[in-house]
Amino acid sequence: MILTVTLNTALDITYRVGALRPHASHRVSDVTERPGGKGVNVARVLAALGHEATVAGFAGGATGQVLRERLARVPGVTDALVPCAGPTRRTIAVVDELTGDTTQLNEPGPQIEPAEWSAFLDRYEELLPTASAVALSGSLPPGVPVGAYAGLVRTARAVGVPVLLDTSGEPLRRGVAARPDIIKPNAEELAELTGSHEPSRATQDARRRGAHAVVASLGPQGLLAATPEGRWRAAPPARVHGNPTGAGDSAVAGLLSGLVERLSWPERLARAVALSAATVRAPAAGEFDAAAYEDLRARVTVAGVVSVA
Amino acid sequence: MILTVTLNTALDITYRVGALRPHASHRVSDVTERPGGKGVNVARVLAALGHEATVAGFAGGATGQVLRERLARVPGVTDALVPCAGPTRRTIAVVDELTGDTTQLNEPGPQIEPAEWSAFLDRYEELLPTASAVALSGSLPPGVPVGAYAGLVRTARAVGVPVLLDTSGEPLRRGVAARPDIIKPNAEELAELTGSHEPSRATQDARRRGAHAVVASLGPQGLLAATPEGRWRAAPPARVHGNPTGAGDSAVAGLLSGLVERLSWPERLARAVALSAATVRAPAAGEFDAAAYEDLRARVTVAGVVSVA
Repeated sequence: MILTVTLNTALDITYRVGALRPHASHRVSDVTERPGGKGVNVARVLAALGHEATVAGFAGGATGQVLRERLARVPGVTDALVPCAGPTRRTIAVVDELTGDTTQLNEPGPQIEPAEWSAFLDRYEELLPTASAVALSGSLPPGVPVGAYAGLVRTARAVGVPVLLDTSGEPLRRGVAARPDIIKPNAEELAELTGSHEPSRATQDARRRGAHAVVASLGPQGLLAATPEGRWRAAPPARVHGNPTGAGDSAVAGLLSGLVERLSWPERLARAVALSAATVRAPAAGEFDAAAYEDLRARVTVAGVVSVA
Repeated sequence: MILTVTLNTALDITYRVGALRPHASHRVSDVTERPGGKGVNVARVLAALGHEATVAGFAGGATGQVLRERLARVPGVTDALVPCAGPTRRTIAVVDELTGDTTQLNEPGPQIEPAEWSAFLDRYEELLPTASAVALSGSLPPGVPVGAYAGLVRTARAVGVPVLLDTSGEPLRRGVAARPDIIKPNAEELAELTGSHEPSRATQDARRRGAHAVVASLGPQGLLAATPEGRWRAAPPARVHGNPTGAGDSAVAGLLSGLVERLSWPERLARAVALSAATVRAPAAGEFDAAAYEDLRARVTVAGVVSVA
């Protein structure tokens, strides 16, 4: 089982409108809802790849109830969410019908009480021994300590479970110092962590700060990895057009499933890039196009990076 | 008891953001939720005025559940909503923090099945004999026949219950032909019904089409009424600044409560204008400021309109 942690789960709502105009009134022509939050997306992709995935984190209120009902219908995903009193946040993606451009509105998430945070820590420690790997994904809801991910990284490492951290800002900075096996920042998060806008330099710097391996997602350019076994750049065969929502989460699922299957780093990176591109190509945000994935996987280029240090 | 019918109830959600920018991502700083739909607003104001109000219409899904839980906490309002399979719609008001400007996103509402519509009609006929008046408010959800309001007007008139209709477009056109006691269009709805942009002419034309009394809401200029007993213009003492959401529903509550209390038309209009202005002044959309209402009520001017016909 692969464990994914999403402390700030979400009910992801997509609205279609003609075109969003500030300070006007809009009739929404189509509404879709799905369980969301980065770790929930990772779990869904892992399950589609044939892995058992367990989702931990919080769910509360009417939105949390809907999220859990929807999650129960996803084969291969087990719900281990801990109840909280505050309502699970909604995210609203308003898609302009003609252009596909998206405006995003993200609620902050529920206030997590100390007793709820304790209940989550107990659940996490219960689940870890049966996990082959763990992903810690996304933002922290109000009330969760800023060093939360650092603690979760240490607990996983103490019981020998490989841990991937995918977050930003201060929770990432503190989490890196706890020496996670992998971090997967995007270019902006990596620059914020290291102060360097030069990805090759920044990935190496992030390793010096504590991450064993750093896989930076560079959008359409693919991934740049700095690991104890070497450095690689992995890129899709051509620029992929579509909706990038969830592409980073698919990359995380590719990296973790590859780790658990004991693939080499170049194989893991090829899988992650292909999954990521197949997610951009899928019509629904955060799903992936299985045929595109199979096609792309053989055509991703993975090249070793020569050290300049 | 005054009955209010809201076929397309809503969970009204308000988001505060820095400033809405199309195609950007926004962190919502504050989220509020309240039971909505025009007839629900009317019922809340009626209850605040000391009348017992019963809310009929549909509620379904997780949003319908939240709406009913919130409604149960409003003193003086009785929930007589009929369950439907589809989820009650959300409306989202995105308020820019600095300017207070609002962008509105309205979901279409649930598909109402024929058996659900039948169940509503049974409920309506059960409730009517105990009602002193009925308000039919707002849009029709998908699946409800476009002549729905015309039928509801006829049923109410057949049992001698005065009926006020507040809707737009084809449902208003058909409803007017069924001879409701009062309609309360805004300037745009009135122009669409009659083809005339001249309110004085248009209110008289709407009477000829079947409405016994027409009370047009002209925004900051107040109300213009054409009734069997005369014509009046009622205006607030000064321009009121604030959020106009729900002002029309407060006017409906003023008219209906005045009718039930057997107030004269000028007294009803003064109450409706004062409530409407006190709603614009209240900090939360759709609430009214009780002190402002008492103050304004004595200062509204009601003037007879001399016939030009």
